[in-house]
Amino acid sequence: MKRYEALADDLARSIGTGVFRPGERLPSVRQTCAARRLSPSTVFQAYYLLEARGLIESRARSGYYVATQAPRMPPEPELPSWPDGDSREVDVSDLVFEVLQSAMHREVVPLGSAFPSPLLYPLDKLGRAVASAAHDLDPWSTVDDLTPGLGELRRQISQRYLMDGIDVPAEEIVITNGALEALNLSIAAVTKPGDSVLVESPCFYAVLQSIERNGLRALEVPTHPRDGVDLDALERAIVRHAPRACWLMPTFQNPLGATMPEPAKRALVTLLAAHGIALVEDDVYAELHFGPKRPPPAKAFDREGLVMHCSSFSKCLAPGYRIGWVAAGRFRETIARNKLTTTLNTNVPAQRAISRYLQRGGYDRHLRRLRATLAAQQERYLEAVGRFFPEGTRVTRASGGYFAWIELPEGADTLALQRQAVRMGISIAPGPIFSASRGFERCLRLNYGHPFDERAEDAMRTLGALASDQAVRG
Amino acid sequence: MKRYEALADDLARSIGTGVFRPGERLPSVRQTCAARRLSPSTVFQAYYLLEARGLIESRARSGYYVATQAPRMPPEPELPSWPDGDSREVDVSDLVFEVLQSAMHREVVPLGSAFPSPLLYPLDKLGRAVASAAHDLDPWSTVDDLTPGLGELRRQISQRYLMDGIDVPAEEIVITNGALEALNLSIAAVTKPGDSVLVESPCFYAVLQSIERNGLRALEVPTHPRDGVDLDALERAIVRHAPRACWLMPTFQNPLGATMPEPAKRALVTLLAAHGIALVEDDVYAELHFGPKRPPPAKAFDREGLVMHCSSFSKCLAPGYRIGWVAAGRFRETIARNKLTTTLNTNVPAQRAISRYLQRGGYDRHLRRLRATLAAQQERYLEAVGRFFPEGTRVTRASGGYFAWIELPEGADTLALQRQAVRMGISIAPGPIFSASRGFERCLRLNYGHPFDERAEDAMRTLGALASDQAVRG
Repeated sequence: MKRYEALADDLARSIGTGVFRPGERLPSVRQTCAARRLSPSTVFQAYYLLEARGLIESRARSGYYVATQAPRMPPEPELPSWPDGDSREVDVSDLVFEVLQSAMHREVVPLGSAFPSPLLYPLDKLGRAVASAAHDLDPWSTVDDLTPGLGELRRQISQRYLMDGIDVPAEEIVITNGALEALNLSIAAVTKPGDSVLVESPCFYAVLQSIERNGLRALEVPTHPRDGVDLDALERAIVRHAPRACWLMPTFQNPLGATMPEPAKRALVTLLAAHGIALVEDDVYAELHFGPKRPPPAKAFDREGLVMHCSSFSKCLAPGYRIGWVAAGRFRETIARNKLTTTLNTNVPAQRAISRYLQRGGYDRHLRRLRATLAAQQERYLEAVGRFFPEGTRVTRASGGYFAWIELPEGADTLALQRQAVRMGISIAPGPIFSASRGFERCLRLNYGHPFDERAEDAMRTLGALASDQAVRG
Repeated sequence: MKRYEALADDLARSIGTGVFRPGERLPSVRQTCAARRLSPSTVFQAYYLLEARGLIESRARSGYYVATQAPRMPPEPELPSWPDGDSREVDVSDLVFEVLQSAMHREVVPLGSAFPSPLLYPLDKLGRAVASAAHDLDPWSTVDDLTPGLGELRRQISQRYLMDGIDVPAEEIVITNGALEALNLSIAAVTKPGDSVLVESPCFYAVLQSIERNGLRALEVPTHPRDGVDLDALERAIVRHAPRACWLMPTFQNPLGATMPEPAKRALVTLLAAHGIALVEDDVYAELHFGPKRPPPAKAFDREGLVMHCSSFSKCLAPGYRIGWVAAGRFRETIARNKLTTTLNTNVPAQRAISRYLQRGGYDRHLRRLRATLAAQQERYLEAVGRFFPEGTRVTRASGGYFAWIELPEGADTLALQRQAVRMGISIAPGPIFSASRGFERCLRLNYGHPFDERAEDAMRTLGALASDQAVRG
């Protein structure tokens, strides 16, 4: 990102969050130059960009003002009213694969993708770490460094937990082929076919696929678009259905972007512990916080070893390397054994490469840059929702990650929208793939992990027009 | 290996297979120099070594002769008489983990290990391939090259099949985290809990662990130590128990080293097809043949797409890289989906590295060297069995791979032997870990994939002495 773009995004964020109000005068170009140590031409470019985006307007001989008709930021969705559900068998895989497959081409604008742009990652530096790790690979490490995984890497992960004030000894950690293997090993460690599992509604489709494959039953718990799973409903479901396990994303939830407030996370862990229910915690986006600190995981409040905290480097550092882990609590032995008998081990050179990269420093600098980029992109995509989508559209504004959840007005059908969009070279992730009961037909998940360039803007405009058509007809 | 050692091993092999008979005169040093283009000192060193090993003896002014008391090569075991068994639940994991864990230290002599020496592999060259693959990694490939895996690598694997006369299109291949994931995905694709699966007896313990974890039942079929699974018994088991699937290693079977003759493989595929039973074929040692040609897999005779042929690069090229595959026949779609929802993908830089290594050539040269080394080591380890183990010991002589199956005389108890051996710094793999019914208490699997150095010789001597003690007491 160029300097003027970064400045424009900063200012846009300040406008979006109300630091500058509609009609208010912006600092002069000279003031901004001084405050930010930028050249006048950079500041002018930023202001021109904001003007072009309709966020500010210039008044002759007076300077720049926040537009009084500032781009409408759509409101956030609310917790839908929702009856307590039954546990149900899951049959969602066919639909998910159909949707995913339709979007697997580079030319398609990846608004429905599960991945952020791979260009956001230090693949060059990682490549050098791989080269150096492969160069002095101790041959015996290919035999010794079996599951639970490379000791040095587990120690480094443990240290990062500690920096966030969470006590997870390296011995508790099992390295896996990405977070997905960690999650699957975790749920398998505490369930057998026929058991019920509490999940968020909506939830990440891979959760539903895993439940389907393992012959489990899903208990969908209403989940607030900003604050995460509803604890009252969760407790009622526990009392009524005696589930074996709970599988949640308490931070930057996929697809909502919701984050449970810290007291709610604490209450969740206490509630589950009281009923002896294990928690599979998916926390893969934790490092992508836009605020100053990583929200603590539920694992931080775990006293009983009942929380299996799963994460990876795939979303924050090393896509394609497939290095994840689980801090497995009391299930560590079971999980390590199941890993040994299903995939045996995790790629040794990749483990060493990531360990070496972490050792050399630069990870936190990379993360700061990544977070700022995603936050700026969020701003611009949400602005585009406001500009292009029909009246009555709502959208979540997550405090981290790269997903927004869009709720279209009455009459919308995002499965139909998905089929139309694909024909126009745009992928979206329609609401029904995030639910065992095929709900959320008016919703879709938006990926803002790709640059908001002209192509993206065009795609958002097209999508908004298609959604408006549905709203008119509906 | 030094030249004189290679020559000595060659000659030892010729003696072992009867090319030179006891009492027969060896070619003179001068003849051997000329024939092999070696220096006299190299040939002398080889002859001294063979003399020290008791294989040949010098006669003054006449030359070298094969020892008349040539080291006794123990006979091969026979198919044990064995009643047809019931299908049974499996509960072997605890024992397997106990045994494996006791041997996981570098100082332990790895006679019970499942891995050959990592020093046998071109890890340096692979490291350079990794470095170059990581250096020009297309960032988008981390998103695009999802399961079924890197197209170029699948094409190269398909070409290698074709070179062996087997038609497996690249589209049928799914890349996996090692062969173990391929095997687990394959068995899961064709069974549900409670189903029965035909397995060899003895069989690789990971098969039993997978069956146990998936809630399946094992139907153990008697298996000949040289010719593999008994087809008559297999057919009776099919008729009696209507199993869902069959999981076998028809080539260089682990732990026996057995290889089914080609007609038997053909008959196996026909028999299974007639009953609509899927075959999970584990063929990870195929490239380690000592004869001139790779024995064809059962997959070569598959007309119905019922054979899932699983293999990897872990045992023949790249230990620790965890790159395997399955040629999945008609189950390709199911397997690819299950892979997508369990581990999503396989390490992208490692796939590219192996693809690049294959492209550059040198793989076949490496394989020829590896096969020769393993064949020579087999000779020396089996000789040591003859020298050190008690009368009545039998041992298989596989035509490839790196496992021998030792049957000790009456009275032996290899679980007890394992505990004694570990205390003396030697690991062995006792027979009962290869059986759901805990049979084979007189047997053990010997790994000859490590150099027969002084440490190995001492270990074999110690093990032989411990076994002799048991035989005397028994």
